[in-house]
Amino acid sequence: MKVSHIEHLGIAVKSLDEAIPYWEGALGLKCYKIEEVADQKVRTAFFMLGQTKIELLEPTSEDSTVAKYIENKGVGIHHMALAVENLEEQMADAEAKGLRLIDKAPRKGADDMTIAFLHPKSTQGILTELCEKK
Amino acid sequence: MKVSHIEHLGIAVKSLDEAIPYWEGALGLKCYKIEEVADQKVRTAFFMLGQTKIELLEPTSEDSTVAKYIENKGVGIHHMALAVENLEEQMADAEAKGLRLIDKAPRKGADDMTIAFLHPKSTQGILTELCEKK
Repeated sequence: MKVSHIEHLGIAVKSLDEAIPYWEGALGLKCYKIEEVADQKVRTAFFMLGQTKIELLEPTSEDSTVAKYIENKGVGIHHMALAVENLEEQMADAEAKGLRLIDKAPRKGADDMTIAFLHPKSTQGILTELCEKK
Repeated sequence: MKVSHIEHLGIAVKSLDEAIPYWEGALGLKCYKIEEVADQKVRTAFFMLGQTKIELLEPTSEDSTVAKYIENKGVGIHHMALAVENLEEQMADAEAKGLRLIDKAPRKGADDMTIAFLHPKSTQGILTELCEKK
């Protein structure tokens, strides 16, 4: 694969209203977007931190995968997203290298990205997302 | 606080020898340094990923905090390190904003950085390190 940088870190939080003041107040970042991603059952909030976005993930339903993550592991870093070009080519390369694709085809992510997730069992325990700017 | 970017992500691994081939082979990064940090009881390996370093952490002892982390939570992202200038000033500001300092004074970290850790209970569940280039 060819990855250029960490596009974002996905951070599981219980409540955007409680979490945003930490990132804005303590760390001095600015929330530039709040977006609901219905098929993921999350509400997201975005900040820029250098080259990388911080994407807060608040579950909107108890059966959201993020709600289950918080139940099992607590709040904190949920996934790492890597910026790529030619997403389908990178997905094929990942599969050829023995990584497991959660998404068999690219799909729409938050903040105008096309994305695919790789299974953490094949990526050193880190839920890893590949992201391409639309 | 004033943070410029994610200086590195600390990734807990059981074995550098097993983990490095993933980052080099699957992701195409290059390990530029392996360094033992005796007081943390870890061996580290570094890669650049855009603006951010990936710092693999292999425990060298069963009572290393990283060994305990792996036992409790499994391998994966262990901490997030934020680049700052004037570390002592940022630490004072963090404390003034109600964050808990694990390190009361700056100390030497890997890869020529001066560092201080903040307690995850005060940083949204994310073990957070402040880092200043020496």
